[in-house]
Formats: sequence, C-alpha cells, structure tokens
Amino acid sequence: MKRVLIIGIGAGDPAHLTFQAAAAIASADVFFLLDKGAEKDGLVRLRRELIAAHAREPYRTVEARDPERDRTSGAYVEAVADWRARRADVYARLIAEEVPEDGVGAFLVWGDPALYDSTIAIVEDVLAKGGEPFDYEVIPGISSVSALAARHRVSLTRVAKPLHITTGRRLPADVEAADDIVVMLDAGCAFADLPEAAGADVYWGAYVGTEDEILLAGPVREVAGEIRRLRAQAREAHGWVMDTYLLRKPAR
Amino acid sequence: MKRVLIIGIGAGDPAHLTFQAAAAIASADVFFLLDKGAEKDGLVRLRRELIAAHAREPYRTVEARDPERDRTSGAYVEAVADWRARRADVYARLIAEEVPEDGVGAFLVWGDPALYDSTIAIVEDVLAKGGEPFDYEVIPGISSVSALAARHRVSLTRVAKPLHITTGRRLPADVEAADDIVVMLDAGCAFADLPEAAGADVYWGAYVGTEDEILLAGPVREVAGEIRRLRAQAREAHGWVMDTYLLRKPAR
Repeated sequence: MKRVLIIGIGAGDPAHLTFQAAAAIASADVFFLLDKGAEKDGLVRLRRELIAAHAREPYRTVEARDPERDRTSGAYVEAVADWRARRADVYARLIAEEVPEDGVGAFLVWGDPALYDSTIAIVEDVLAKGGEPFDYEVIPGISSVSALAARHRVSLTRVAKPLHITTGRRLPADVEAADDIVVMLDAGCAFADLPEAAGADVYWGAYVGTEDEILLAGPVREVAGEIRRLRAQAREAHGWVMDTYLLRKPAR
Repeated sequence: MKRVLIIGIGAGDPAHLTFQAAAAIASADVFFLLDKGAEKDGLVRLRRELIAAHAREPYRTVEARDPERDRTSGAYVEAVADWRARRADVYARLIAEEVPEDGVGAFLVWGDPALYDSTIAIVEDVLAKGGEPFDYEVIPGISSVSALAARHRVSLTRVAKPLHITTGRRLPADVEAADDIVVMLDAGCAFADLPEAAGADVYWGAYVGTEDEILLAGPVREVAGEIRRLRAQAREAHGWVMDTYLLRKPAR
C-alpha cells in the first residue's frame, strides 16, 4: 500500500527539525512542493533545503500549484471549505499519479501539522473520496508558538492557569477566555486596538527562527506602536509577514 | 560568563529531539539530573539516553534531589510557589558550584519548556536572587500535546476556531472556553464526569511517544469507562502515569 507522510518541519530554523522528521524525509520517494505564490518563496526554500540535507537518492520532487483561497469573501468558513475541496482534488491527483506502488509520498508542513494547518484534514478528505486506499502518518514539529516562547525565554503558561490559542479575527471575542492568549494568523495587530489588552504585556515575533527574525516584548501601551511599525516595514521589505504573539494579562 | 541551557527534549520518543537540541546537548559541560523520586525513573532514563547519544566528552552529570511539592495542600498556587522557591535554592547552588567559569550547564526538560514546566521561571528566580550573573537560552521541544495530536492524526484546531489548553483541575470551569480543549496534568479523567463533555469526542494518550504508549479515541460516552480502566491499570503497572487528551465538542 502507498504511504503518505505529513511531516512537521518546525518554525523556520532548519535546526528545528527532529530526528524523527529527518528519518521520515529519508524514507520518502517523492516530495510534494505546493507553490503558494511568489510572496512565500522563503517557505518553499526551507523545504528544499531540508530535502537536500536529509532525503535519500533516488527521490523526486513534484511541484504543484496550491489552489488559492478567496480572501475577498466575507464568508470565511465557506471560503476555506471551498479552498479545501479544491486542494483535496490536487492532493488526490498527486498521491494517485506521483507516489509509486508501495512507495512513500511526503508533505513538509511549516510548524506543527496539528496547529492551524489543513494538511491532515485534506488528506482525510482525499481518503473520504474513496479512491485508492493509502496509509498515512503525522510527524509532529516545533510550532511557531513554541519557537516564539523559546526566543522570548518565556513560559506560555502560568502555574495552574490555562492558555488560549486563537486567531486575530477572533481575538476581540476571545480576549476574556484566559489571561494568557496566543494569537496566530493575525492580519494586523488586533491586540493594539483592544481596551481589554491595554494593561497586558505582549511578546511578539515575526519570521521566528529565521535569519529575518524580529522580536519585541513589553507592555502593550509602550510597544504596540513600534510593533505596528516593524510589522508594516517587514511586510514591505519581504512582501509577506508571518507573526505570532503571546498576550499576557495581569493574573486575575 | 556562565551559560545555562534549558533544552526541550520532546515527549518521550528519543527521535523527538531536534537538531538544535542535539547541538545544545553537545555544547554543554555539565548536565543536571533532578531526581523526582523512583516513580518517574523513565523520565530520568530518557535524559541519560539522550546525553549518552549527543553529549561531547568531557562532560559531567550532576544528580540532585528535586524538592517535592506538597500535594496534600489544598492551596495549590501557594504550594507551587513554595516548591518553586525551594527549587530555586537548589538550582542556584547547582549553577554556582557545578558550572565551570565560562562553561555551559544544561537542564533537559520533558516536552516543551514553555508548556506547564517551571524551569524557565525557576532560572529567572535564580537570576532575581542576585547572585553571580549568567546568560541562559531556551530550546523548544515537541510537547506532549503535539505528540498526542500526531499519534491520533488529528488537528488540534479547526478552521478559524480557538484551542484552549488547561488542567484537569480547571476543566469544569473552562469547559465552555472553546469547542476544542486540551487537558494536561489531569489527576483522573476529569472529562468523564462533566455533563458538558458528554457529547464530545476524546483523543486520549498516555506515555505518548514511548514504548508504553496507549492511545484511545472516540465519543466520550463510549470510551470514557475504558480510558478510566486503562489509566488505572497503567498507573498500577508503572507506578505513575502521564497522560493528555483533546476534548472535541461539536462545533457551535
């Protein structure tokens, strides 16, 4: 039976790779590189580096165009569902046509495949379509959240307290869900405008783990403006920005 | 100046180690092995294995007795604070007496140092005591949460939805904080008694990543009893149990 590996490769530093992930890369016959457009070249480059360092000959890489999400739609959940269906078609074709009989195909996933990544769900969708069966395995990776905390030398959790992980879009609704909140996929510093976050500290990072890493931490009141400025500048310079932050409110 | 490394070693599988963590182990002169009592021998054994595999001669290991937490106290936060202060004394002595001038001392931390681990806070406490200054660095690790999700081949997050990470003790208060909840440090299947969790699915794992790993998933109604039974049996057999689970309620 064919096998598919969903391999977490960490948050940007090639040294975030685990030995388990390196062994998984070494076991693969074909790697799928899904092109998300020119602006995220850096992400594809890290995958190529890790493949070159750890894959065993003979292996192939197959590039495919990753269907784009309709970012103009206000209906976020529906837009993502449609995007996922189109991606499932692409993934199904890749697995059916490119993985040799009894061979191994691999998807290299930024961060941890279990945190705001759709590859597991898409592979389940492919299986649910009922084509040729295959087995698959998930290899965990260092998430951008773990990497952010390590670089700031801060624990995400306080004693006996919860951690809430949410999106920029949801932060206004979720800001009271915990005193410690990690925000991902924030299109633009949602914390800076929230009265509930005004007394909090923020630990912010962009391109964490890469040579372009930017870190800034401090009271929201003092650093929100500078984070906004750094983020806009970085986005301008790189064409894209990937950032994450921990919002730490005074303990209740 | 002396340097201290807080190195995340992953959730139990030696292959969870990252290349960054392996390089950090290779750079250390002395490793601190804190003995938490006979019941957690397995944890000390993994540390010894990883040191033997990656450390560079000459190096030393120093064992110390990790002060025990008063588990009989009802005042959880105070008991933990007292425990932390006693641990800070032990860590301060280890760093002062055992790390050579301009040398590197290392603490190997189970899972990810940023998730329900006190080493970062204790090292900050040691610095705050104002003894000899030292620099320190944190290396992220695969958390038991990432490992659990990978073994169950399930994403922790659903599209555009938050994830709440909490403790067994807090679960009754936090059960409405999100539809997806990860519970750690649960002394005994808190989910099984909660009416709010009766319609949920649970993805449970004990000793995840080790050869003793036990996994079970399904509707809470169908599997809660069996998880209770497996957990009690495992605790009996090993003398201790370390388990984690994802509680996934129907999406609102």
